[in-house]
Amino acid sequence: MRAFLLAHGLLLVLGSSAFGQSWTPPTPAQRCPSKWGAADERGAANHVMPASVLRAAQLIRTGEIIELGRVLTATMPLFGTRIFDLTTKRTNGPLGANKRYSNEEIVITELGQVGTQLDMLSHQGIDGLFYNCVPIDSVATRTGFQKFGVEKLGTLFARGVLIDVAAFKGVDMLSAGYEITASDLQGAMAKQTLSLSPGDAVLIHTGWGRLWNTDAARYSGPAPGIGVGAATWLASQDVLLIGSDTSSVEVSPNPDKSLDSPVHQIALVVNGIFLLENLKLDDLAGKRLHEFALIVEPLKIRGGTGSTVAPIAVH
Amino acid sequence: MRAFLLAHGLLLVLGSSAFGQSWTPPTPAQRCPSKWGAADERGAANHVMPASVLRAAQLIRTGEIIELGRVLTATMPLFGTRIFDLTTKRTNGPLGANKRYSNEEIVITELGQVGTQLDMLSHQGIDGLFYNCVPIDSVATRTGFQKFGVEKLGTLFARGVLIDVAAFKGVDMLSAGYEITASDLQGAMAKQTLSLSPGDAVLIHTGWGRLWNTDAARYSGPAPGIGVGAATWLASQDVLLIGSDTSSVEVSPNPDKSLDSPVHQIALVVNGIFLLENLKLDDLAGKRLHEFALIVEPLKIRGGTGSTVAPIAVH
Amino acid sequence: MRAFLLAHGLLLVLGSSAFGQSWTPPTPAQRCPSKWGAADERGAANHVMPASVLRAAQLIRTGEIIELGRVLTATMPLFGTRIFDLTTKRTNGPLGANKRYSNEEIVITELGQVGTQLDMLSHQGIDGLFYNCVPIDSVATRTGFQKFGVEKLGTLFARGVLIDVAAFKGVDMLSAGYEITASDLQGAMAKQTLSLSPGDAVLIHTGWGRLWNTDAARYSGPAPGIGVGAATWLASQDVLLIGSDTSSVEVSPNPDKSLDSPVHQIALVVNGIFLLENLKLDDLAGKRLHEFALIVEPLKIRGGTGSTVAPIAVH
Amino acid sequence: MRAFLLAHGLLLVLGSSAFGQSWTPPTPAQRCPSKWGAADERGAANHVMPASVLRAAQLIRTGEIIELGRVLTATMPLFGTRIFDLTTKRTNGPLGANKRYSNEEIVITELGQVGTQLDMLSHQGIDGLFYNCVPIDSVATRTGFQKFGVEKLGTLFARGVLIDVAAFKGVDMLSAGYEITASDLQGAMAKQTLSLSPGDAVLIHTGWGRLWNTDAARYSGPAPGIGVGAATWLASQDVLLIGSDTSSVEVSPNPDKSLDSPVHQIALVVNGIFLLENLKLDDLAGKRLHEFALIVEPLKIRGGTGSTVAPIAVH
Repeated sequence: MRAFLLAHGLLLVLGSSAFGQSWTPPTPAQRCPSKWGAADERGAANHVMPASVLRAAQLIRTGEIIELGRVLTATMPLFGTRIFDLTTKRTNGPLGANKRYSNEEIVITELGQVGTQLDMLSHQGIDGLFYNCVPIDSVATRTGFQKFGVEKLGTLFARGVLIDVAAFKGVDMLSAGYEITASDLQGAMAKQTLSLSPGDAVLIHTGWGRLWNTDAARYSGPAPGIGVGAATWLASQDVLLIGSDTSSVEVSPNPDKSLDSPVHQIALVVNGIFLLENLKLDDLAGKRLHEFALIVEPLKIRGGTGSTVAPIAVH
Repeated sequence: MRAFLLAHGLLLVLGSSAFGQSWTPPTPAQRCPSKWGAADERGAANHVMPASVLRAAQLIRTGEIIELGRVLTATMPLFGTRIFDLTTKRTNGPLGANKRYSNEEIVITELGQVGTQLDMLSHQGIDGLFYNCVPIDSVATRTGFQKFGVEKLGTLFARGVLIDVAAFKGVDMLSAGYEITASDLQGAMAKQTLSLSPGDAVLIHTGWGRLWNTDAARYSGPAPGIGVGAATWLASQDVLLIGSDTSSVEVSPNPDKSLDSPVHQIALVVNGIFLLENLKLDDLAGKRLHEFALIVEPLKIRGGTGSTVAPIAVH
Repeated sequence: MRAFLLAHGLLLVLGSSAFGQSWTPPTPAQRCPSKWGAADERGAANHVMPASVLRAAQLIRTGEIIELGRVLTATMPLFGTRIFDLTTKRTNGPLGANKRYSNEEIVITELGQVGTQLDMLSHQGIDGLFYNCVPIDSVATRTGFQKFGVEKLGTLFARGVLIDVAAFKGVDMLSAGYEITASDLQGAMAKQTLSLSPGDAVLIHTGWGRLWNTDAARYSGPAPGIGVGAATWLASQDVLLIGSDTSSVEVSPNPDKSLDSPVHQIALVVNGIFLLENLKLDDLAGKRLHEFALIVEPLKIRGGTGSTVAPIAVH
Repeated sequence: MRAFLLAHGLLLVLGSSAFGQSWTPPTPAQRCPSKWGAADERGAANHVMPASVLRAAQLIRTGEIIELGRVLTATMPLFGTRIFDLTTKRTNGPLGANKRYSNEEIVITELGQVGTQLDMLSHQGIDGLFYNCVPIDSVATRTGFQKFGVEKLGTLFARGVLIDVAAFKGVDMLSAGYEITASDLQGAMAKQTLSLSPGDAVLIHTGWGRLWNTDAARYSGPAPGIGVGAATWLASQDVLLIGSDTSSVEVSPNPDKSLDSPVHQIALVVNGIFLLENLKLDDLAGKRLHEFALIVEPLKIRGGTGSTVAPIAVH
């Protein structure tokens, strides 16, 4: 709880509009145990309860589904050395008098971390420690993590909110390296007459997704996204997850050159808040659909650090 | 349309309670074009429309989510030579002044066909032809199928109905090789005071799933499931998908020894109806929850024959 | 035998110095059965007999080994969509009172066709037929070929001959698309005072290998190599294999734009002669070592189309 | 050098015929630097020099090659969770006017540690340290080891000696858990009128290999092999490598239940001597061929802990 208070305190001191601010990870004493308890492995997913699911379901008024997942291919943008390799295993047949043919495929990929994907708590650490200060070494095995595996998560079904920062800034696409601030988020929400509640799923539209199919190299390079200030503010709003139409949600590179993807730590390690990356948000933004039921069904990969997903917005 | 009429005709002649009946695949002239048109690639998924999604969403009255997906592990039941191999790629770190650590994993698996999974239309053929009589050879590539890939499907969101045949028969678990007939389905539904509508997702509880974690070899061997009669009847009811707590939904082996998994052809190739396999149905059956919103988000694997999924029932 | 005579006939008509000549694959009647018999699966490997091995071994006079294999890495030149993906599986340990640690790695690769590699007869076909006119469809399975798998080959141990065409042409590196002719080979051999005998392993130095570590993209693009004329002449010399310091041994693209890698068919399908690709030949050429024992130990991949190898020249 | 002297000392104290003796790993001070120098990464491979290669080549008197490698298949004996998964990528074609067809395959396997395979120095450690006391953590990356990778090794070409312990004991096959002692080795060699020289490759025939194709489960379970005493004695003979027709060369389990595969440490970590596992030795033993040239060409897997190989004996 101290960590949570500290995060608030930090916010108050620095203000929510700070740009490129530095950040020092809270100490174990400051951030552990987490607000969900010392033994918790699900972080903000604890927000997903029948009452909140029911509230989200009541946002379904037309039955229209908007698909937010990207098509998975070998040539999609992939971070670093990740791969998505699919080999068809075709035509086992004809079998039986009914001349059955059967096809399948072998797929090789960083299944938790490619395409549209959700980051689980075992994805990130601070100085050798996970969320709730569990030492990475103590739970790592060759075949997954004994704690914080994505199979612990379950479906995320929540009120979803689209914050269209690109529209707020009057551009099709924010520029590479643009840091979205807490003021940007607050301004866009005011324009959209939206407010946040604990347990909401926040999706941030930057427009960067238009590069997905046209320029994989640029897509995977420096990109716009939230910085330390915005992440800290969103954490203070007690959200379920933060998603975006970029590969890491956060501004890349961070304006403070000494920091390496600090938003991943603020979200996953300090606050147990999930990141949802590489979303396809153009339809949602084009329809100006800002409030909806968000449904994300992570694969139950035992010990996995995340999951490729195909989430939907329904309204 | 002829195929559809023929299927009805066949049903009328043979009756819905037939057990172990033989089956001859309809000819291309009889089954093509499909009821959804000659160019259709989505089969019964065409049932998923805003109006039907809205009706399904209105079944959500408590917000309780029941998870229907199995945890994915190397030792889960796997058909034939399929594998699920996960290798942790841990501790890329410390990175930056913030001492970030980052973990991921490489996964190797028949991603369309392991764990709880949905079969897409490119999974099965009759005598070299897919659904809509597309020659397999004409659309197969080394890296997926150019038609009927699972990325064409989108989320399935529909009224879900659990038909508890094990409860109807008064057993914990149907026996290996037991063929569920149309009469069984109809009897169980009458007992549950349920009826079917076009576009419904039908889940059949056999109790076989209790072997999932205890006896992988037996689970993957001969199993109970629907036969030709029940499949033909369900197709005549115009359902969206047929799921079960077994590895192939259909009785295995088929009582007619000359037939090799004919239900796969009746569902996928003749009628464009999906199969949802290896479901975890114990919670649903234990709660006697027979009507709910079923939500399945297949991964958008380009050219894939199916997808591992983590579906939910919500009520 | 007819095919063999035909090849000779073709050679006599066209002459051995022809450049960019067209080529029509011999008909099944012309090329089958192969010179090694209709049931043969080992082609020119039949040359490797104790007497020939002994003659080759007698070329070992200093005991110096020159390694001809490339180091295998994810970033080495890879043709098309091939991959070499290695993930360390480290530190299973400490085990026992002796505190044992054990490491290994999972590797994902087109094992028959990456790095320094030998092409087996199942790699290539003409119009649906393999060597000895076996239909590809009749022996293909999802898990390898029932005939012509590389496990049938055994170690190749033969007199090796380096033909240094780059040196003959007075260049460090032949240019992209340069077609090495039979005259080039004969001229270089005359300069080196070398002659060929049946069963010899012929290695052709083009200098292209200097791009291996410096420019993977250029290495994998248009490259120098032998054309139809040189391949036909080498086949008439009854060699065991043809190797080079390029990715396909043959000129790429073929000067006759209608032809797609015809040398692969002349060697593997028509004559049962192996190709040895991506050799590291700089040491051998630098030492002007033109005659040696060549030893190649293909992995015994059942049903495999080739094998990554680490051959040596010993003299 | 202290470690080497210590090993000798240990041998003298305990005697060479000890059975099931305990073993305590030498301390870093006792075993480092290695006899090949503190910076050495190749261990006993330093024995392979032109003079020794020439002596080995002079053992080739008939030119007969005996293949010692196993065929690689998905169903071969595999230790623990290792896999060998091959998926054919067939018939890219027809290409060009020459109607070329091209096949390949994707293979997924612990490439350094399956089938007939050679263990490299990065495979094993003692208490977090490799050979030459290099900390595992200091050289491990996600994509291989920065030191002691198998690409550093090069071809092993040496005098090979078959020690036929099964024949010495008058059995077809030693029993599971039988510990081969130094006396067994010495006795068998005396019977065969053989002696060892530094740099020799020692292959030990147990007969266990007859289970390879008939009973994979039994093959991979408890097996005969050398124990601490025999390994220590072979190390004192300064051999290049120790091979056998079992999966781990050493007796399994070790008679001292507190020890976990100590021979791996004695060979690889303490003495830099390689292990060659899963050899096919029946032909060699059947022919009573006890002295030969052994040639092993490990794949040059960068940072790899070993390599699948297809070694030969030539005489």
